[in-house]
Amino acid sequence: MSQYHPPLKDLAFLLGDVFDFDQHAQHCGIDCDTGTVLAIAEEAGKFASEVIDPLNAGSDRNGAKWHDSVVTTSPGYREAYAGFCESGWNGLRFPEQYGGQGLCSVVATAVDEMWHAASLSFALCPMLTNGAIEALLTAGNDALKETYLAKLVSGEWTGTMNLTEPSAGSDLAAVQCKALRQEDGSYRIHGQKIFITYGEHDLAENIIHLVLARTPDAPKGVKGISLFVVPKFMVNPDGTPGSRNDVRCASIEHKLGIHGSPTAVMLFGEGEGATGYLVGEENRGLEYMFIMMNEARFSVGLQGLSVSDRAYQHALAYALERVQGRAVGEATTGTIIRHPDVRRMLLGMKSRIEAMRALAVYVSMQKDLAHSNAAASGKAKARMELLVPVLKGWLTESAQDLTYDAVQVFGGMGFIEETGAAQYYRDARILTIYEGTTAIQANDLVGRKTQRDRGEAAFALIGDMMADVKVLGENGHPAAQRLSTRLASACDALRSAVNWIIESQESAPRAVYGGSVPYLHLWGTVVGGWMHARRLQAALRKDGAELAAVAHSASFFAAHVLVNAPALAATIKEGGSSALDFPDTAWLE
Amino acid sequence: MSQYHPPLKDLAFLLGDVFDFDQHAQHCGIDCDTGTVLAIAEEAGKFASEVIDPLNAGSDRNGAKWHDSVVTTSPGYREAYAGFCESGWNGLRFPEQYGGQGLCSVVATAVDEMWHAASLSFALCPMLTNGAIEALLTAGNDALKETYLAKLVSGEWTGTMNLTEPSAGSDLAAVQCKALRQEDGSYRIHGQKIFITYGEHDLAENIIHLVLARTPDAPKGVKGISLFVVPKFMVNPDGTPGSRNDVRCASIEHKLGIHGSPTAVMLFGEGEGATGYLVGEENRGLEYMFIMMNEARFSVGLQGLSVSDRAYQHALAYALERVQGRAVGEATTGTIIRHPDVRRMLLGMKSRIEAMRALAVYVSMQKDLAHSNAAASGKAKARMELLVPVLKGWLTESAQDLTYDAVQVFGGMGFIEETGAAQYYRDARILTIYEGTTAIQANDLVGRKTQRDRGEAAFALIGDMMADVKVLGENGHPAAQRLSTRLASACDALRSAVNWIIESQESAPRAVYGGSVPYLHLWGTVVGGWMHARRLQAALRKDGAELAAVAHSASFFAAHVLVNAPALAATIKEGGSSALDFPDTAWLE
Repeated sequence: MSQYHPPLKDLAFLLGDVFDFDQHAQHCGIDCDTGTVLAIAEEAGKFASEVIDPLNAGSDRNGAKWHDSVVTTSPGYREAYAGFCESGWNGLRFPEQYGGQGLCSVVATAVDEMWHAASLSFALCPMLTNGAIEALLTAGNDALKETYLAKLVSGEWTGTMNLTEPSAGSDLAAVQCKALRQEDGSYRIHGQKIFITYGEHDLAENIIHLVLARTPDAPKGVKGISLFVVPKFMVNPDGTPGSRNDVRCASIEHKLGIHGSPTAVMLFGEGEGATGYLVGEENRGLEYMFIMMNEARFSVGLQGLSVSDRAYQHALAYALERVQGRAVGEATTGTIIRHPDVRRMLLGMKSRIEAMRALAVYVSMQKDLAHSNAAASGKAKARMELLVPVLKGWLTESAQDLTYDAVQVFGGMGFIEETGAAQYYRDARILTIYEGTTAIQANDLVGRKTQRDRGEAAFALIGDMMADVKVLGENGHPAAQRLSTRLASACDALRSAVNWIIESQESAPRAVYGGSVPYLHLWGTVVGGWMHARRLQAALRKDGAELAAVAHSASFFAAHVLVNAPALAATIKEGGSSALDFPDTAWLE
Repeated sequence: MSQYHPPLKDLAFLLGDVFDFDQHAQHCGIDCDTGTVLAIAEEAGKFASEVIDPLNAGSDRNGAKWHDSVVTTSPGYREAYAGFCESGWNGLRFPEQYGGQGLCSVVATAVDEMWHAASLSFALCPMLTNGAIEALLTAGNDALKETYLAKLVSGEWTGTMNLTEPSAGSDLAAVQCKALRQEDGSYRIHGQKIFITYGEHDLAENIIHLVLARTPDAPKGVKGISLFVVPKFMVNPDGTPGSRNDVRCASIEHKLGIHGSPTAVMLFGEGEGATGYLVGEENRGLEYMFIMMNEARFSVGLQGLSVSDRAYQHALAYALERVQGRAVGEATTGTIIRHPDVRRMLLGMKSRIEAMRALAVYVSMQKDLAHSNAAASGKAKARMELLVPVLKGWLTESAQDLTYDAVQVFGGMGFIEETGAAQYYRDARILTIYEGTTAIQANDLVGRKTQRDRGEAAFALIGDMMADVKVLGENGHPAAQRLSTRLASACDALRSAVNWIIESQESAPRAVYGGSVPYLHLWGTVVGGWMHARRLQAALRKDGAELAAVAHSASFFAAHVLVNAPALAATIKEGGSSALDFPDTAWLE
C-alpha cells in the first residue's frame, strides 16, 4: 500500500493565499491564526498517516464481527481509537466547558478530511459521536448535557443516530418506533432501527443512542416525531456506566464496503422497554435533526473529498513507478504517468480534489461566520444552507468518478483486491446514499434552497462568482482567460436554470424534480469552477512552478468539467418530462 | 433476486422493424429469417433465465476455489455447463464442418447478450473458448483444426487466451514467455502468464491454451511474438485426452467481482517445458490476435449491455414494489417508481440500454456483411472496424454508470450485498479493463480507425447519420424534432472533432491522445443517438403506447446524453494539453 500524504501544502495555500484565514478569524472573533491551524493539521496528519491509515486495508479484509449481540471491531481499532481520544482529537471543535478545545469549523474541516482519508470506516465512529454531541448541544436540557457531554466530547463514550427503520428510509414520516412516557419523566422505547453506524462495538465503555420515536398521542407524519437519548448502559449517579439498558444489536450488515464500520440492526425494548430521555420537546425531533443535518451532510461531503484524495494518491504512486509501454510521442519505454490518458485521469482527479477541498474550506468559513456575531452572519447562514446539499451531493458523486479512475490507472491490477484501489471504490459507494441520497440533497436544493427564497441566496452567489469572473478576465494569463470564459458561460447557464426552476415551480413541479440531480451537478460544476478561479487569482500573485501547477489544474477543470454547464442547464430544462410521461406499461420491454 | 427477462420484444422490434433482418440475410446470403432468430432467442432466453441466472448470486458468494493446482468452480456450474453444451449453444456460430450450426453474427449477438446477462462469470468460459476457436479457424493448420476444433465447438474442451505477463499487460511488446522448437516440429514453452480467464477449472475434460511466446531468434517487440496451442492434457492419436502437459495453475486471483470466473496464474514449463504447437507462422502471433480481437472486444462490449440490462431489471423490479414516501405532485404514498428522480434513473438506464442493444445488432450486421460476398462488404468491414472500439469502450463505460444507478435505486439496501445490485456493480468493473482498457480502445479509435484512413470511414458514417437526421427532421412528431435537432448538432461536433484529430496528428500527437477517451465517449454518444433515430423512424410507423415508449426514450436520450456532444468536442480540442504540460514536480501537493 502507498503512504498517505496529508494535504498540508494545499491547506497552507488555501488558508494563507486563497481565503486569508487570519482575516476570517478576526472577522468571526475566532482566537486562532493560520500558523496554528497548520500546526494542528500537521499533527493530525501524522496521526492519520501513521496510526489510522495502516489499519484501513486490514479492516476491509477483516471487518467488524458480530456474535451473540456483541460486535468486535477490526484488529488495531481499539488501540487506535484509544490513542485518538487520548490525543484530544475527538473534542477539537466542542466547547471547552465540556472538555473540548473550542476550535472553529475550518480547523475541524482540515483535520476531519485527514481522518476520513486515512479510513472512512474508522472515522465514522467519531463522526457519529459528533452528531450526538451536536444534538445534545442543540436541544438537550442541562441534566442531559451534564450526564453525557463530557464523556462524548472526550470520546470515552460514543454516539449514534437512530433514524432509519425497515419501512422508514428516506421518508422519516413513516417512523414507527414507540416511546411511552413514564411517571419519572423518562420514556420506554420499543422498536427496531436499521443501518445504525457503530450501533454496537467494543471501542468505548458506553454507547449513547439518539433515537427518533413517536409518543402514543403524537400527530401523524414528520410532525409527530420526538428525539430521545437511549444509553447502552444506564448511567449511575456518579457518572459511571451501570446496568444494561433494554437495547441490543441483533446483527450487522454484510456490505459492499466500509467493512470496518459495523452497520447495526438495533432492537429497542425487547423486554420492558429501553429507557430513554426526551431531548428538547416532544414532536420536535425532526426539527432538531435538521439542525444537525447540515453538520452531518457536510461531513459526508468531506468524506467524498477524503476518499478521492486517498485513492488518487494511491493511483499516483503506482503511475510513478509502474513501467509499461512507450507513450505516444516519446522515445523510450517509461512509467505509465507518461501516457497521455493516464495523465488525463490523474489531473482529472487532482483538479477536482482541489476544487472540492477549496469548497469544503469555503463552506466551513461560512459556518464559522454564521455562528459568529459578525454582521455578515445572516448572509453566511443562507449561503451555507445553499451549499451544504451541493457539497454533500457533488463531492460524493465526484468521489465515484475519481475512485473509479483510480482503479483504472492500475489496469488489470486494479481489479485485484490486494492492490487496494478497489477498496476505495467500494467504500466510496455508500457516500451518495447515507445521510440522504443524492436525490434527497437535490430535492433540498430545489425546494428549500432555491424555490423557498425565490432564488435570493442563489442569485447572490452567482453575483459573487461573476465578480470573480470579471477580475480574472482582466488578467492576461492564458489560464485566466480560459477559465473566466468558461466560468462566465457556466454562470449564465446556472442563472437560467435557477430562473426556470423558480418559474416552473407551480406549472411543472414534477418536471422540476425530474431535473433536480442534474441541477445539483450544475451547482457543483459551477462552484467548483469558481473555487479554481479563487485559487488561480491567488496563484497569479506567485510565479514559476507554483503558478503553473495551479494554472494547468484550472485549465483542465475549465475544459473537462466547467465546459459541461450549458448542457446540464439544457438537460434540467428539457429533460424532466420524458421520464415522467413514459408509459407505465412499457418499462419492461 | 428478481427474475431475468430476455429482451425478446426489443429484439423483435430491432430485427423486424428497425433493421429489416430478412433483407439483411438475403443480402448476405444467410439462410435464416427473423422468425428463426427469434425462436432461437426465445429458447436461449429460457436457458439463460432458468438455468444460468439462478446460479449467478451463489457464484459470487461462493466463487471458484483453488487448491493444489486444481480449481473447483461454483456449485451448479458443472451441471449448467454440461446442459449448455448438450443443447448445442456452444457451437451456434461455428462451421457445420466442425459440428457447429453455422449461424450468423446477429444470432450470436442475440443469444450471447442473454448468457452474459444471466451471468458474466459463467458466460466467460464459452466466450474464451470462442476466442480459441477463432484463432484456430483463422490461422491453424489442418492438423490443429482436426485435433481441436470439433471438441472446442461442442464445448467438451474449453479454450483460453494467454497474453498477459506480469510485465506485459497493455504492452504486449514486452512478452517474455519462451518457445523452443523441437525436432518433431513441436515447441517447448516456458514462462508465466497472469490474468488467464478459466485458465484452470473442472467444467471440461481438457483445456486448450492459446499462448503468446517468443522463439529464441525472434525480433524484439511485437513483431517477434508467435502463437501456440498448449493443451492441458496431450491428445492421444484417437483424439482422447492423454498424459498431463507441463502446465499448471499456480493460483487464482481474489477479485472485486466475477468471482465465479477463475482468473488464473499459469505456469508453463516448470519441468522440461510445456509442449506447444505453432499456430500459423512464427512471429505472426500478434497479427492473428488482432484478427480475433475484433471478436473478443465486441463480446466484452456486449457484456456491458448485458450486465446493464440485468442490473436495470433488478432495480426496476424493486422500484415497482418498494413503497416509500409521497412523490412530489402526488396525493398519496406510492411505490418509488413514482418519484421523479427514480424515473429519471430508470429511463436513463432503459434509453441507454436500447441504444446499446441497437448498436450491438447494427455492428453484428456489419460483421455479417463483411464476411459475405455482398458488394458492400468492404465498406461494412471498415465500418465494423471503426465501431468495434466504440462498442467495446462506450458500452462498458456506460455499464459503470448504469450499474451505479441500479444500486442507487435501492437506496441503503443497494449497499447490502444480499440485495444483489452491488454484485452487478462489482462484476461490471472489469469490463473497461480487460480485452484492452478504455484508453486502449480510444487509442485504437484515434490512430488506426481515424487517422490512418484520414477519416474516410468516420466521415462516411457521419454522412449516413446526417441522412437520418434529415429524414427525422421532416417528421412533425415532437420527439423527432427534438432528436433530429440534437443529433444534427452532435454530428457537427463529431465532425469537427474528427477534423481536429486528423489535422493535429503531426503537430500535437500527445494532445490528441490526451483527448482520446473523450473522443471515444463522443462517438458512443453520437452513434447511440443515431440508433435512437433509427428506432424512432421505425416506431413512427406504429402508434399508441408502442410509439410513446420509443419516443420518450429517444427524447430522454436527446436531452440527457446527446446534449453533451458539443462539450465533449470542446474537451477533445482544448482539454488535452493541460494534463500533458502539468509540471511533473507538482503532482503530490
